Amino acid sequence: MAPMKLYGWVVSPWMGRVRVCLEEAGAEYEIVPMSRCGGDHRRPEHLARNPFGEIPVLEDGDVTLYQSRAIARYVLRKYKPELLKEGDLEGSAMVDMWMEVEAHHVEPTLWPIIRHCIIGPYVGRPRDQAVVDECLGKLRAVLPVYEARLSVSKYLAGDDVTTADLCHFGFMRYFMASEYAGIVDAYPHVKAWWDTLLARPSVKKVIAGMPPDFGYASGNIP
Amino acid sequence: MAPMKLYGWVVSPWMGRVRVCLEEAGAEYEIVPMSRCGGDHRRPEHLARNPFGEIPVLEDGDVTLYQSRAIARYVLRKYKPELLKEGDLEGSAMVDMWMEVEAHHVEPTLWPIIRHCIIGPYVGRPRDQAVVDECLGKLRAVLPVYEARLSVSKYLAGDDVTTADLCHFGFMRYFMASEYAGIVDAYPHVKAWWDTLLARPSVKKVIAGMPPDFGYASGNIP
Repeated sequence: MAPMKLYGWVVSPWMGRVRVCLEEAGAEYEIVPMSRCGGDHRRPEHLARNPFGEIPVLEDGDVTLYQSRAIARYVLRKYKPELLKEGDLEGSAMVDMWMEVEAHHVEPTLWPIIRHCIIGPYVGRPRDQAVVDECLGKLRAVLPVYEARLSVSKYLAGDDVTTADLCHFGFMRYFMASEYAGIVDAYPHVKAWWDTLLARPSVKKVIAGMPPDFGYASGNIP
Repeated sequence: MAPMKLYGWVVSPWMGRVRVCLEEAGAEYEIVPMSRCGGDHRRPEHLARNPFGEIPVLEDGDVTLYQSRAIARYVLRKYKPELLKEGDLEGSAMVDMWMEVEAHHVEPTLWPIIRHCIIGPYVGRPRDQAVVDECLGKLRAVLPVYEARLSVSKYLAGDDVTTADLCHFGFMRYFMASEYAGIVDAYPHVKAWWDTLLARPSVKKVIAGMPPDFGYASGNIP
C-alpha cells in the first residue's frame, strides 16, 4: 500500500502535531515539502486539497483530509485507536474534552506569544507587548487548571498518554523555546508532563526538524 | 437511571449546540438553569464542575464534562453513534474535519458579528464596524467552501446528517437572525442545508428557547 502523503512545511506547529501522531501510530508516510514563502499553499493544486489554503493536508489513497486535529484522529483511529480510548465511553470523553481545551484555551493563547516573541523579530514586525501580556495573563489562568488535573492523573485523559496530550506538542514546543518558558516552572506537574512527552521517541524524532527559531537565524526557512 | 444534568442558560449558542445533540440522541436530561447576569458561572460550585467558568457542563452519573463539542460527542457516542459515523474510518474523518472547520472557521467568524450586531445594542456597547466587516470578509471566504461541499453531498460529512452539521446550530441560529443573514442567500446549497436543519424536530424544540435577540427586548435574560 502506498504510504500516506503529508503536505506542508515541517517547522509548522500544526504539522508537528500531526507528525507526532503519525510517528506514534507507526504509520508509513512521506512528507511532500511545501514552501510557505513561495506561496505554495495558495496555488490551485493545494487549494484543491484544502480550499482554506492551510497546511497540513494528509492524503491516504482516496482520502484527502485537512485540519490538524482531524488528521490526528484519523491516523490514530486507523493505526492506534487506543490513543483515542475508543470503546471507552468515559475515557474517550476525557480525550475529547482535553483536545477541546487545547484547541480553545491553549493554542490561541500560545500562538500570539510565539508569533510576537519568536517570529516577529526575524520578520521585522514590531512586538505588540499588550497582546503578549494579554496572552500571558490567559496562560496564567490556564496553567493552574492543568496543574490540578496533572496532579491527580499522569496524563490529561488518565494514566496513559492519549491524543489529547500529543495534540499539545506543536505549540508547546515553540512556547517552551520562548523567553516566557520559565512560567511553567511554577507548575511542577505540568513541567513533568511536558518533560515526559519530550522523552517520547516520536517527539524526539519530530522536534529534530523544528528548530526553536523556526529556522530564521540560519535562513533555512520553508 | 437518573437523567443527565445540563448546567447553563438556554439562550447560549454553546448550550444550543449541546441541546440539539441531546434531543437528537433521545437522551433524558434536565436543565439546571444558571444566571449569567448573576454570575453563577463564577461561583465555586460551578468552578468545581468547570474550572474555566464556562457553560454548558454535563453531568452523567460520575462523569462531569465541559466543552460543548466534547459533550456533543459523548452524548451521541452513548446514544446515537451513527451520527459520529463511528466504525467508518473515512466517514468519521469527514465528521471530524467538518467539526474542526466549524470550530476554527465558522464559530470565531460568526460570534463577533452576533456580539456586535445583536447583543451590543442592548448592553450599550458601541459597534466596532471594523471587526464586523473583517468577520464578514472571512465569512464570504468560507461560504463558497461550504457551497462547493454541499453541492456534492447533502450534508457536510456525506448524505446523512451527522454531528458535524448539528454542531453548527448554535451560532448559525443567531447569525441567521442578524441583519447580515441575507449574505447566505447567494449560496443556495448552504441555504437549503440550513433550512433542512431548521426543519428537524430537535432544532425546532431547542430554538423555541432561544429568542433571536437573546431575550434582551423582553428583559427576559438569564
